[in-house]
Amino acid sequence: MDFKWNKLEKKMSEMGIHTLLITNPKHVYYLTGFLSNPHERFLGVILQPGNDPFMMVPALDETAARESSTIREIITHQDTDNPYHLLKQRIKGPLGTIGLEKEHMTLAVFEQLQSSLSFARYLDVGPWLRDLRVRKCEDEVAKIRYAVDLIEQVLDNAISHIAEGVTENELVAEVEYQIRKLGADGPSFDSMVLSGEKTALPHGVPGTRKLQQGDLVMFDIGVYANGYASDITRTFALGEPSAECKKIYDIVLAANEAAIQAVKPGVTFASIDKAARDVIEQAGYGQYFIHRLGHGLGIDVHEFPSVHGNNEVLLAEGNVFTIEPGIYVPGVGGVRIEDDVLVTKNGVEVLTSYPKELIQL
Amino acid sequence: MDFKWNKLEKKMSEMGIHTLLITNPKHVYYLTGFLSNPHERFLGVILQPGNDPFMMVPALDETAARESSTIREIITHQDTDNPYHLLKQRIKGPLGTIGLEKEHMTLAVFEQLQSSLSFARYLDVGPWLRDLRVRKCEDEVAKIRYAVDLIEQVLDNAISHIAEGVTENELVAEVEYQIRKLGADGPSFDSMVLSGEKTALPHGVPGTRKLQQGDLVMFDIGVYANGYASDITRTFALGEPSAECKKIYDIVLAANEAAIQAVKPGVTFASIDKAARDVIEQAGYGQYFIHRLGHGLGIDVHEFPSVHGNNEVLLAEGNVFTIEPGIYVPGVGGVRIEDDVLVTKNGVEVLTSYPKELIQL
Repeated sequence: MDFKWNKLEKKMSEMGIHTLLITNPKHVYYLTGFLSNPHERFLGVILQPGNDPFMMVPALDETAARESSTIREIITHQDTDNPYHLLKQRIKGPLGTIGLEKEHMTLAVFEQLQSSLSFARYLDVGPWLRDLRVRKCEDEVAKIRYAVDLIEQVLDNAISHIAEGVTENELVAEVEYQIRKLGADGPSFDSMVLSGEKTALPHGVPGTRKLQQGDLVMFDIGVYANGYASDITRTFALGEPSAECKKIYDIVLAANEAAIQAVKPGVTFASIDKAARDVIEQAGYGQYFIHRLGHGLGIDVHEFPSVHGNNEVLLAEGNVFTIEPGIYVPGVGGVRIEDDVLVTKNGVEVLTSYPKELIQL
Repeated sequence: MDFKWNKLEKKMSEMGIHTLLITNPKHVYYLTGFLSNPHERFLGVILQPGNDPFMMVPALDETAARESSTIREIITHQDTDNPYHLLKQRIKGPLGTIGLEKEHMTLAVFEQLQSSLSFARYLDVGPWLRDLRVRKCEDEVAKIRYAVDLIEQVLDNAISHIAEGVTENELVAEVEYQIRKLGADGPSFDSMVLSGEKTALPHGVPGTRKLQQGDLVMFDIGVYANGYASDITRTFALGEPSAECKKIYDIVLAANEAAIQAVKPGVTFASIDKAARDVIEQAGYGQYFIHRLGHGLGIDVHEFPSVHGNNEVLLAEGNVFTIEPGIYVPGVGGVRIEDDVLVTKNGVEVLTSYPKELIQL
């Protein structure tokens, strides 16, 4: 039983929850070390205070679960079994108040639970897990570092393919090819490569547009490796970009650096967003920075905390999040520069190390 | 209003449902032609008999929804809006009995609906959509044909990379690179390449194993294109495989062909499974064919019907499914040969056309 279980037990006792049922596979990974995608099959970790937690897994995942998880008691079910009946047999006694994840559990699963196990009432514990996960331990940071290292290798390879006439889709194909070759679990989100005027679309989709001289070329890419995500954006130029694009680049870079400088324990996430936004507003481009500054990064590529102007939560040692200011001027172009940062005891460590000055190819 | 809406209205009237709310993005695509991934944002199509259906979409998808969907009334919501309140304002009057998809809707969304809209009771309509989807129209078959054509081009390219010393992961990288280059939406499932003794693992995961002379090399791959899936398996040999592997290959091929021969409207899915299984059992390998024969294919790569020995449902014109018998002998090797088939008015059309005799490279 490590600190995570202890925290959960304490919280259960405060909230009057008798049985905790965790079914989100990412939360199961966080708590047990067992990472899987059970698809439609039942996967769950069950904790009742005073007892060791146990886990229910589909039979075909049994070996992986025994090898990778810290849970001693593992109950398996075949496709012909009813896992809710097995759960009932194992738990015996009344369930009382159950804690579950409302944003993960489907109505179908909930009804199965209700008809098999009958419980007094239920409470949402998803936010507890989300909150537990915002402070990363050393082992987690090491995994994020590794994912960052992989994606920077991918990026380094990818820019060697930037040339006139190459399409955005071809660059995406190169990125994903390298992600596979390096042995990552896969991309951590849809790999994005945009060029020319399309860089001004923050939700743009890569397509068949061919690179031209003078284009900005934006890569927003990441990998999952060992279940942890990286996420980086760099904007390059093919040949000589316009004077306005260069100006925008410099402002975004200054905003990125101002936000990084502001990171330390005890200040608000809102203040980090403001540090970047002030630079962009003072340069007269405030209306073109149309999204939040960043997001937490870990087992999910987008997780808590959200780094935006209304988040008054204080930074704490072990937080990992992105800093990704951008300026998007329709008809001109867009620049975004994104780093992954770790809050340290006294300040900040930038986990991404890829150069940030404008690289012209 | 096409036949799909008419069928749904008829079913609603039979079941006493007053309001239908479809939120599974695949079902929204099937009904409206609008394909999207709304992530955590609210997407829904609402039908009340006697009125045209309307759709609620996140604001950033508005243009795509208007361009691609057959729905005239589209209500958009920003991230700062409460979509359930907007829904309440639009619907007015009592909801009565609501039809929703229990296997898709989370408890969190259900509670939001319940607190905003108050309805008398709810019924699961997921199975209706699943049943509607099992008979494909011409337009759908054309999309599946296209997805099949793409994956066969990918496969043809991939086998040119089979050589001693190449790893499974490298072959996966080649497959996914070509999938991107050809402009598919992406793989329709985790691309699988297994080699040597690993071919005997039906749930094996590609890794760093290097191909050796005499290996069997199994590709199980597919793409999504225009929202429709393909799925094909072929097993190749690097050099000369063992006599037992060749024997297994011939049995699996005979089983594949026997099942295809059995396909026509009016027979049971169980009989198709049996046609293949009989061949394998008579050859003495029954204990090594450890999964169902196949699965439906369409907007999802695994959808209804399930082709297994207990499915007494009758085949009907327009069904599209896979036929994928396999033999997996631990320590020796495995062979699977998978085709995608369409039930025609009088028999069968095999949509996959890749050669099936053993190709030695």
